[in-house]
Amino acid sequence: MIEVDIVIEGGRVVLMDDGDTVIPEGAVAVDGEQIVAAGPLADIRERFLGRSRIVVPDSLIMPGLINGHTHAAMTCFRGIADDMELMEWLNGYIFPAEARNVNPELVYWGSLLACAEMIRSGTTTFCDMYIFEEEAARAAKAAGMRCLIGEGLFDFPSPNAKTPAEGIACARGLLERWAGDPLVHILVAPHSLYTCSPSVLKEAKALADEYRVPYAVHLLENRAEKDQLREKFGKSALRFLEEIGWLTDRLIAFHCVCMEEEDIRLFADHGCRVVHNPESNMKLASGVAPIAAMIAGGIAVGLGTDGCASNNNLDMFQEMDTAAKLGKVALLDPTAMSARTVLRMATCEGARVLGMGGDVGSLLPEKRADIVIIGLDKPHLTPLYNEYSHLVYAVNGADVDTVLINGRVVMRERKLLTIDEGEVMRRVTEIACRVKGSLEGR
Amino acid sequence: MIEVDIVIEGGRVVLMDDGDTVIPEGAVAVDGEQIVAAGPLADIRERFLGRSRIVVPDSLIMPGLINGHTHAAMTCFRGIADDMELMEWLNGYIFPAEARNVNPELVYWGSLLACAEMIRSGTTTFCDMYIFEEEAARAAKAAGMRCLIGEGLFDFPSPNAKTPAEGIACARGLLERWAGDPLVHILVAPHSLYTCSPSVLKEAKALADEYRVPYAVHLLENRAEKDQLREKFGKSALRFLEEIGWLTDRLIAFHCVCMEEEDIRLFADHGCRVVHNPESNMKLASGVAPIAAMIAGGIAVGLGTDGCASNNNLDMFQEMDTAAKLGKVALLDPTAMSARTVLRMATCEGARVLGMGGDVGSLLPEKRADIVIIGLDKPHLTPLYNEYSHLVYAVNGADVDTVLINGRVVMRERKLLTIDEGEVMRRVTEIACRVKGSLEGR
Repeated sequence: MIEVDIVIEGGRVVLMDDGDTVIPEGAVAVDGEQIVAAGPLADIRERFLGRSRIVVPDSLIMPGLINGHTHAAMTCFRGIADDMELMEWLNGYIFPAEARNVNPELVYWGSLLACAEMIRSGTTTFCDMYIFEEEAARAAKAAGMRCLIGEGLFDFPSPNAKTPAEGIACARGLLERWAGDPLVHILVAPHSLYTCSPSVLKEAKALADEYRVPYAVHLLENRAEKDQLREKFGKSALRFLEEIGWLTDRLIAFHCVCMEEEDIRLFADHGCRVVHNPESNMKLASGVAPIAAMIAGGIAVGLGTDGCASNNNLDMFQEMDTAAKLGKVALLDPTAMSARTVLRMATCEGARVLGMGGDVGSLLPEKRADIVIIGLDKPHLTPLYNEYSHLVYAVNGADVDTVLINGRVVMRERKLLTIDEGEVMRRVTEIACRVKGSLEGR
Repeated sequence: MIEVDIVIEGGRVVLMDDGDTVIPEGAVAVDGEQIVAAGPLADIRERFLGRSRIVVPDSLIMPGLINGHTHAAMTCFRGIADDMELMEWLNGYIFPAEARNVNPELVYWGSLLACAEMIRSGTTTFCDMYIFEEEAARAAKAAGMRCLIGEGLFDFPSPNAKTPAEGIACARGLLERWAGDPLVHILVAPHSLYTCSPSVLKEAKALADEYRVPYAVHLLENRAEKDQLREKFGKSALRFLEEIGWLTDRLIAFHCVCMEEEDIRLFADHGCRVVHNPESNMKLASGVAPIAAMIAGGIAVGLGTDGCASNNNLDMFQEMDTAAKLGKVALLDPTAMSARTVLRMATCEGARVLGMGGDVGSLLPEKRADIVIIGLDKPHLTPLYNEYSHLVYAVNGADVDTVLINGRVVMRERKLLTIDEGEVMRRVTEIACRVKGSLEGR
């Protein structure tokens, strides 16, 4: 009998391993930050004694979800402007709201609010790009969330960096300060090919190489961007990236809506990774990314919500549902994007995309204990024929009962244990009042 | 001071009137089955004294949602088969599962489960087509839900009707038995143009005319159906319907994915109504209905979830979100389908589609008191800049706190008052076991 910190009992255990194992009556043993074992309840009971037990009757136990692309602090702009032309939306609302309001305070509280929403809806890891990202890192740390965080880099001044060099210095500072942290990981995050000059892109890549970390960029989000980049570079954006040595297995590209066959081949050849953001791509009318073709081509594809200005929520269960349905209707083929595929995008494949495949994304021994427990005893989750189908097409974020991250219980029976939600909501509501005021008279 | 049964206080009141009125701090007075007044809290308090009060702090009060198309009893088949070719799905799973299992018991408990799920997610009215619909009517009545219910009619035998004549007789029986009921309304529901001969369609229409009720049909759900009908009739499906006198303002057509300009004009000219089912159309890879063009052409369009075998939930908030986002991406135009438009589809326009425009769909005096109260005090609903945007892009069904239908409180603080959920879930789980057994060995 081995003593461990926690034994989670009482549910169907969905491992998200390569064999698609589902244990009908299973349990998971957790010790310290790690999963020690997951298996049939009787076996686990025989082998392990938990110093504490978590029992959620009629539940489903699965790996925490991985939100591969968001701008957490943009919860502060949730619903500030919708349903308008892209340029009006950006230039009339989002950019002025950001220029006039984004500061460390907004980023801290906005990110903490995002953490509350993400934990509540079963996300345990997120990849973030914004500015003042030290604050996003602090918020994630306070919430007990795993993250991969990058300061957005631009040619032009941001509220946090007057010059590209200051941006790079800020990114270096993050890399130094958070080195070795068990939860907060740093990547390098040049915003896009249309907001970063080739020299900024090269410096960003050099920094990522120096620290052996991933680097991420918004890429080919819509037709206009694609056309603009082709004109700017005199060749396709990916050919340009290949030339400057950017296509490696540490590149994480967000969106990739307008990828052609040649682009997919290039990405696949170099092991580059993609994060799909279907709800944002739909809401901004960007288009439909050719995800089925990417996966068929061998590209690792994760799933993300994008920020709350273009979604407007961070619920990865809804995002999975949309990813599957959009993938089907776009190709007029109901087999084009299965529940299994999108569930993998949000778990094990998503982990691989972020370079965390060895740590999270499945409930295998020695992985970090990022675990979500879903209560199934509800009308909209009755009956249950197939777990994958249920998780993608029927469950939503509000069905999450309990969440562990890195072995720590961060939500229990829908009560957040790491965040004072009332205070966070008050703070963000105050910030939103100022944001609203800053846009008045337009 | 006028005494009324209930005063609902404490929230933003979204009337869904033609002026898009939102009362920031409002209240609604309800007496008997009716809304007496909705207005600023201070006004309502001055004029009305409630025998009971409902106060949900930091809430939003809105009309109940209208699910314009579902097959309620198909909750019993939720997730039984997904992600496969349409013909494999239908012939390998759905049709055999139905043929071997559908009986009055399944329809009663499945429909009651659907009512529980619908009330929980803010739906107060639904339009249903299935077989043994007397049981669906009984379930809705027991749940206290408003509905428009029709026995599915076919050329071939159904488990409930050996011949088309028996089906018509069954529909007549429903019309007779439920005449004058305040909640349960009956329509005539020939299944589709590919499962009903012209003579069945004509008889169905004659019955609907006799009782002055709407009649509904699945129509042009996908390309294969459209092509098949053109070949069968030697003309477009809508030209055929026009010839047999089917195009009237009591026709409710479900799906209408493959409508062309001429079809839209014909429908608009005759005042025919449409119910849009974006999630089902996506999941079955049917295509994207030209909803923006229909609305621009003057057609009344409602919104529905379709049944749980092709969605797999009945959450109208998620359906609204998807409707808006799909409408945008399909036209690559972020203005193509606004939050306002889809919220109207799910409320006032949805009511008009079902011929209930005078009764429900907005919080105006003398309308039936079908009212949903949403709790806003949650991370994913913070901050709030715009109510319509919030309802469509951020709220989900689990945010519904309290529901009134026809003046009766059917859910309070997420506790269902009309349905014994535990028993319903047990019954449906038992039924699902039998369903699973009936498909074994395939």
